[in-house]
Amino acid sequence: MSPERRHITGFSNPTVKSLRALREKKHRKAAGRFLAEGLRLLTDARECGHVPEMLVLSDRRDPHPLLAALEKAVEGSGGEIIETSPDILAKITGKDNPQAVAGVFAEFDTGLASIERASADIWLVAQALRDPGNLGTMLRTGDAIGAGGLILIDDCADPFSVEAVRASMGAVFTQRIAQARWGEFEGWLRGGTGQLVAASLREAQPYRQAPYAAPCFVMVGNESRGLPEDYEMACDLRVTMPMKGRADSLNAAVAAAVLGYEVLASLES
Amino acid sequence: MSPERRHITGFSNPTVKSLRALREKKHRKAAGRFLAEGLRLLTDARECGHVPEMLVLSDRRDPHPLLAALEKAVEGSGGEIIETSPDILAKITGKDNPQAVAGVFAEFDTGLASIERASADIWLVAQALRDPGNLGTMLRTGDAIGAGGLILIDDCADPFSVEAVRASMGAVFTQRIAQARWGEFEGWLRGGTGQLVAASLREAQPYRQAPYAAPCFVMVGNESRGLPEDYEMACDLRVTMPMKGRADSLNAAVAAAVLGYEVLASLES
Repeated sequence: MSPERRHITGFSNPTVKSLRALREKKHRKAAGRFLAEGLRLLTDARECGHVPEMLVLSDRRDPHPLLAALEKAVEGSGGEIIETSPDILAKITGKDNPQAVAGVFAEFDTGLASIERASADIWLVAQALRDPGNLGTMLRTGDAIGAGGLILIDDCADPFSVEAVRASMGAVFTQRIAQARWGEFEGWLRGGTGQLVAASLREAQPYRQAPYAAPCFVMVGNESRGLPEDYEMACDLRVTMPMKGRADSLNAAVAAAVLGYEVLASLES
Repeated sequence: MSPERRHITGFSNPTVKSLRALREKKHRKAAGRFLAEGLRLLTDARECGHVPEMLVLSDRRDPHPLLAALEKAVEGSGGEIIETSPDILAKITGKDNPQAVAGVFAEFDTGLASIERASADIWLVAQALRDPGNLGTMLRTGDAIGAGGLILIDDCADPFSVEAVRASMGAVFTQRIAQARWGEFEGWLRGGTGQLVAASLREAQPYRQAPYAAPCFVMVGNESRGLPEDYEMACDLRVTMPMKGRADSLNAAVAAAVLGYEVLASLES
């Protein structure tokens, strides 16, 4: 153990308090920092060039080469390493069975200007998505279909919440994330090439064999209200999935995935 | 208001306590009852022939013809109607902004014998699925793709939990639900026609244009471990979805949906 490491044993330690506070959005925004946990996720982050500013290790951890690589990266970039008990780690992450490691990262730039639309054939877009689990799942799906990232329109859940980061399974570090109001997004989108496709029930055509074109922006709406009508009408293409039963909609993250995989197959064929 | 209705005002009322207890699995199993909330969901239930044994109404509710229909159905079937405050309703459902109505239902028979495999072309199968939200989402997707129901293998989350019922958006009442150990399921499956398909990475073929056949049983595995190898090898078909990024798997409910929609399109073409 290198000498500069701190070992924290008290729940009331100010560092523990400030880490716990990162579970709340207002504290994340004030600090410009967020939490991610788990060796696999932190390794994904490291391999994508995201090294935590602070690494929090369980003092009951088992040695692991990936953990050693992580510690070395944090030390190399001048970050801080803290050791603490599993109990305190559980309190920080809010999980009964905490992973052996958590990291604190600076939030990324989420301006639309950070999106290079030509860098990918597919982009996912979510409007007013409120469930952080759905948001994280969309990031994970985006990674799988080779999307460039996720654009969050209007008031969405926070992509840096513990729940979203967890559900993303590391994709929060591999996918670009942008946040914008609808008007700003529309202006940006129409300033270049890009097809905006909505999962919709209005004047929609079947989602199979629809004329998708890259870069294709696949948009889903709020969990209960769907997309506003004027947003749908501003789309280049409205497509619909079969609904054979009583329900008239899919879970938002499911709709994005079914449509996203169809777009992928279409663009590759 | 009909005279036999009870109005409950106290948090410590025994009925309130027994209703709250239904949020815990052991109490649900002991009572053989589960909770569902929301006018739309309860209306779906009623229209599918599931009338709650007990209806709990907020005393601040707005009148609604569907609510009146629900009350009439409960009265007609000899059920009980209780009125209470929004605060107590929130305590019962565990939701800060409770819906104006909740219902108590008898749990259904979830034996494999209740499944008529010829009644649908697609069945979803989940093995050791631990997240009730994923389970509810699979039910919702099953409804959308016209599946007959969801078969739960080994130790899964409880389909009658408040979270699963909520995520199912009513599909818990439209989809058949069965629970079985793997050996029992395999014996039952091979006692008739049926193609077992796994989302897999082992000796798998691309999921597009795979030779799906009805009745097609689409199986996904546990969120972190996936399917056991011997379960996969017992399948008639193993298919894989493209994974273009760093991750090697999709969210389980997403995988079921992407595959389920592909099977639907294949069987209909």
